[in-house]
Amino acid sequence: MQATKILIVGTGAIGGFYGALLAKSGAEVSVVCRSDFNHVKQQGYLIQSNTLGDWSFMPSQILQNANEYQGQADYVILCTKIIPDINRVQLIKAAVSEKTCIVFIQNGVEVEQEIIDAFPDNEVISGLAFICSSKIKPGIIQHQAYGKLTLGSIHNPGNKADSAQHLSHLINQAGIKSNTSGSIFKMRWLKCLWNAAFNPLSVLSDGLSTQDILCTQEQLVRTIMQEVCTIAAACGYPLANDSIDINIKNTQAMPPYKTSMLLDFENHRDMEIEAILGNTVRAAQREKTACPTLDTLYALMKLKELSLST
Amino acid sequence: MQATKILIVGTGAIGGFYGALLAKSGAEVSVVCRSDFNHVKQQGYLIQSNTLGDWSFMPSQILQNANEYQGQADYVILCTKIIPDINRVQLIKAAVSEKTCIVFIQNGVEVEQEIIDAFPDNEVISGLAFICSSKIKPGIIQHQAYGKLTLGSIHNPGNKADSAQHLSHLINQAGIKSNTSGSIFKMRWLKCLWNAAFNPLSVLSDGLSTQDILCTQEQLVRTIMQEVCTIAAACGYPLANDSIDINIKNTQAMPPYKTSMLLDFENHRDMEIEAILGNTVRAAQREKTACPTLDTLYALMKLKELSLST
Repeated sequence: MQATKILIVGTGAIGGFYGALLAKSGAEVSVVCRSDFNHVKQQGYLIQSNTLGDWSFMPSQILQNANEYQGQADYVILCTKIIPDINRVQLIKAAVSEKTCIVFIQNGVEVEQEIIDAFPDNEVISGLAFICSSKIKPGIIQHQAYGKLTLGSIHNPGNKADSAQHLSHLINQAGIKSNTSGSIFKMRWLKCLWNAAFNPLSVLSDGLSTQDILCTQEQLVRTIMQEVCTIAAACGYPLANDSIDINIKNTQAMPPYKTSMLLDFENHRDMEIEAILGNTVRAAQREKTACPTLDTLYALMKLKELSLST
Repeated sequence: MQATKILIVGTGAIGGFYGALLAKSGAEVSVVCRSDFNHVKQQGYLIQSNTLGDWSFMPSQILQNANEYQGQADYVILCTKIIPDINRVQLIKAAVSEKTCIVFIQNGVEVEQEIIDAFPDNEVISGLAFICSSKIKPGIIQHQAYGKLTLGSIHNPGNKADSAQHLSHLINQAGIKSNTSGSIFKMRWLKCLWNAAFNPLSVLSDGLSTQDILCTQEQLVRTIMQEVCTIAAACGYPLANDSIDINIKNTQAMPPYKTSMLLDFENHRDMEIEAILGNTVRAAQREKTACPTLDTLYALMKLKELSLST
């Protein structure tokens, strides 16, 4: 049986980690990487995992652009941030063939239609990573904790039965939990519950940890989460009644944590404001649901973004 | 006729400026100043005014504490910020005699009861300064623009007829507009309309000017102002229908402006979060009026304050 051919587009803390896992399980993993290209070409990746130990990963093809990809990819896995400056479709288009299954492991809600519209004849899988990891240097990815990858097939014109399961299996084989889900849209809203609260609050508070925020403004966190629940329900994805309590409890149990948006802000990188907050408030508008707290956070984050550029 | 005896407590950009004006009009003006005491003792104040030119002001008595005041003050004028660390009553108590009229020129809403309760037998005047001024060095106060002082007698057990008018007259005589008002509570809410919007937004956006905020997030500004209008009305002080439009238009006409809260934040000084936002949301709670945007801003400013201390 031939090795599964996988192209990872965007090899930061997420793409680099899952790419390395897939390679560990025998897949033929290539990468499109831009900022780290020279380093990776020479030395590949080093993964430093708190749970799996250290290992290195030399991709099969190391590319600067998807149009350089040789062969037909079984999976193209998009792992960039979702920000206005990145055209997700253009980034992967040249490497998508008839048989390619497109996977995106990205944050945010209502981020799937653009991909389905651009590739109506390909299977599309929506992925969510529950992980603490960061790229600490070019080519060096630190995996601190967690890592579960949930995959859900959301568009399957050829009725392929096992694309998500096969990918999930490869991840599991490498020692990290992965499952497939029939309710990936709902899970995306559930993840957004956390992201829409702690990401902006950590940035707007100038870097307070999740612990400091929860200790002093738990009510604000709950109000934000409640608004997300209401919007999710209006969109047809009612979340479980105890979602908020569980999220709060889990966050209290986590070590003080710097959110991804805070890390981006501190490093003057683009933040995923639109994918996490913008899409949420636009969904609320469309569903005629009030979300005054999220509206305020969204506007404030746009001001914060503006202040970075002035 | 004897000169009016005035004690100014808190001689920053507000107290120093109005004290100097009152001295200019012949009042016997003394000051309680703490951080600048040594400098002022030697050199007094220098006022650099864009409209009135430069002049110096040597107070009659220069004190570190109100209990050192010699004589009986006709007016004690409180010009500190309103922050939890400052006990307004204790600060002036020792200099208040039976005949003293107490004036406070301070920001915020619902800040009067504490003073009335502590001095039930004295006349109390609530003052609002519409001014751009700043203390640029110890003893040096720069007056950039505006300056109008509105005074309203809010507690007058002795039925004195002209305390506010007399003070107003002295300010006018020195070349700066001042008037008395029978609706000072409503004016306080009107000033809060501006303060509750631009002060927190300037801090939460990391220092954007009023212009940048208005150009990109006018709707957020209007939402905040509308919530303040609703609370003011619930408290019995309905503001004019065009208050928001006028405030927006006036701000657009102002040069880009750094708010006082932003200056405090940038200089790691206490901000007037409670007087401006805290009292507003507490009034809303009491009146059972929803103000989700102000609730969010208040919580975020408390987080911002916490981040300064961690």
